[in-house]
Amino acid sequence: MNKARVEAFTDAVVAIIMTIMVLEFKTPESPQWTAILHEGPYLFAFGVSFVFIAVAWYNHHYMFSLAERISKRVYWLNIGWLFAMSLLPVATAWAGRYLQARGPEYFYLLVFFLWSKTYLYLSVAIANDLDATNTEKAARLRQMPIFRFLRGWRLPAETTAVAVIVYFYPPSCLLITLSELVYMAIHTTPDSDRVS
Amino acid sequence: MNKARVEAFTDAVVAIIMTIMVLEFKTPESPQWTAILHEGPYLFAFGVSFVFIAVAWYNHHYMFSLAERISKRVYWLNIGWLFAMSLLPVATAWAGRYLQARGPEYFYLLVFFLWSKTYLYLSVAIANDLDATNTEKAARLRQMPIFRFLRGWRLPAETTAVAVIVYFYPPSCLLITLSELVYMAIHTTPDSDRVS
Amino acid sequence: MNKARVEAFTDAVVAIIMTIMVLEFKTPESPQWTAILHEGPYLFAFGVSFVFIAVAWYNHHYMFSLAERISKRVYWLNIGWLFAMSLLPVATAWAGRYLQARGPEYFYLLVFFLWSKTYLYLSVAIANDLDATNTEKAARLRQMPIFRFLRGWRLPAETTAVAVIVYFYPPSCLLITLSELVYMAIHTTPDSDRVS
Amino acid sequence: MNKARVEAFTDAVVAIIMTIMVLEFKTPESPQWTAILHEGPYLFAFGVSFVFIAVAWYNHHYMFSLAERISKRVYWLNIGWLFAMSLLPVATAWAGRYLQARGPEYFYLLVFFLWSKTYLYLSVAIANDLDATNTEKAARLRQMPIFRFLRGWRLPAETTAVAVIVYFYPPSCLLITLSELVYMAIHTTPDSDRVS
Repeated sequence: MNKARVEAFTDAVVAIIMTIMVLEFKTPESPQWTAILHEGPYLFAFGVSFVFIAVAWYNHHYMFSLAERISKRVYWLNIGWLFAMSLLPVATAWAGRYLQARGPEYFYLLVFFLWSKTYLYLSVAIANDLDATNTEKAARLRQMPIFRFLRGWRLPAETTAVAVIVYFYPPSCLLITLSELVYMAIHTTPDSDRVS
Repeated sequence: MNKARVEAFTDAVVAIIMTIMVLEFKTPESPQWTAILHEGPYLFAFGVSFVFIAVAWYNHHYMFSLAERISKRVYWLNIGWLFAMSLLPVATAWAGRYLQARGPEYFYLLVFFLWSKTYLYLSVAIANDLDATNTEKAARLRQMPIFRFLRGWRLPAETTAVAVIVYFYPPSCLLITLSELVYMAIHTTPDSDRVS
Repeated sequence: MNKARVEAFTDAVVAIIMTIMVLEFKTPESPQWTAILHEGPYLFAFGVSFVFIAVAWYNHHYMFSLAERISKRVYWLNIGWLFAMSLLPVATAWAGRYLQARGPEYFYLLVFFLWSKTYLYLSVAIANDLDATNTEKAARLRQMPIFRFLRGWRLPAETTAVAVIVYFYPPSCLLITLSELVYMAIHTTPDSDRVS
Repeated sequence: MNKARVEAFTDAVVAIIMTIMVLEFKTPESPQWTAILHEGPYLFAFGVSFVFIAVAWYNHHYMFSLAERISKRVYWLNIGWLFAMSLLPVATAWAGRYLQARGPEYFYLLVFFLWSKTYLYLSVAIANDLDATNTEKAARLRQMPIFRFLRGWRLPAETTAVAVIVYFYPPSCLLITLSELVYMAIHTTPDSDRVS
């Protein structure tokens, strides 16, 4: 498919998901400055999800720069990844409103897990397509730290561990997610911002 | 017209329609994890409409890659198609909230039908424009399975059949729509993802 | 300025204004099929405004294809035009909800007038810039029917006439606006869809 | 990184932030024409923030036209700048609703300050990257009036002064911000709209 058009469409959807989360940042009903403090927990969750999408976009940008063609299979996996991401605004709003409750935090964890899985399938499909045309690029894609993190036993192991911790202290869900995102933001292949 | 700019404008509108549907996915008012289950029916309808738009975009992408120019007539048919699609968020929200009621499901079916008709008129106009400049591309456009499905007697026949079934079992509207979309997603011309 | 980037930014804003109007198309609170009929008046107003923006975009597309550079002055007039257009969703929602009331219809007429004026100033500024570099293109811009319609005495005369008619029959505001838009959509210069 | 794709993503986010502010412009619940007057204060705040984003985009556009590459550091500072800007719709809605109250106006001032700081860090990072490859462009970036305004002692001094004035007369926050924005819109380097 026309890679530029698929990228532009994907970017538009990602940009909208990123930005409509701000609609849940409710305007305070009171003119008291303390009223804005009630939005603190949501602001924190919004910040985490903003970083989430920024990390996702950064890696998607690098991965698509490696891709030589967008096959129908890759297109549909990309749509699946966007669908998983489109659940993020609700998960963020719910988790931000009830930081101390298990249900909303587990839902956020589930969305993070779904997003990770769809991202992994997308990566694998692009790498497999590259195997046929450019093995060097396929290798570079498989070298991406996010790819290695999501592929192995680490993701299910870690998700299980987080699930246990969240049972005892729900706000840890967003805190641990943020740590993982910061880790993913820092650990990228050196050439990841050198594509042109 | 400038094809790239018309495509970009179309993609922006389609991306927004696709994504604002998530605004109807209401944040639960309770911290109980069971609260999210009430959103199940809407989530299902949202998923069907997400696939709907992804199928539409895939075919629009291929069709526009064939088009050699965007005439004023094609522009206005494209606007009509976008207008029909812009009714989808409301139809989805209503059909998802009342899966067991006839009215909302018939409205969804009507929007699907309108969208199909406007898409068909758009396809025919592009094919007719191509007849004057590139008959091979015109033939490829007319070979698209979605074009043949929408053009013949099949669409009105099938819509009527679905309307009868919905009378007896309303949720079948979304189920049958989903089956059709999966069918359309699978049956595409082999070169449909080879445009560049 | 970078014309492609200004165009893309403008298109994104226009696409969002066009699409968020659908958020005012409220999901019926009842499963009765008659419930959708209450949305009829708004659907009509939404349709008129959809055509409004489609006509605007068509002409903006042609005008920008003629422009050779985007000066700072043109940039700010473009922003002013977008601001006038950003009032359209509210005007549409209000006029659609109270088709029989004078206030909302006058407000719609006012937004249409503001949009027309800012569009005219934008056109004049682009034509003036072109005078220095390409008088043939400047002449083509000044030949655009929409330019001639907005420039002369016709717009204020017609707006005044509509204001009088609206006083006696408020729904005429949207009906007359629609007629004008259809007129503008039909009367375009022959080469307006031949830019590439 | 691919500069065009980062620009397009940024533009989409900026366009959405600019446009969703209109969602706070509530449709009057009454058909009386006087009902729209209650929206006056919000309309004023919306206008100020619209100019805010237009000034920001203008300068971002020039700055990115100078940048030769988007490093990972620049990407993340750009994300931080977008995050600060994403708080603007809430700040605008709150400040517009309570023009006479100190809390909302101080929050608007805070968002303006955060936005300025993140913009400055972004500018410095791009200039530093340019030092290694093109010192002439780096110098041009550092010559930008907005850069010199935000860099020096002027921003904190002025923000403090505004904070004092707002204490006595809250609406001055938006009035002074608007004056500053108009000043920034007028004072730009002569070549700022000559990039191509």
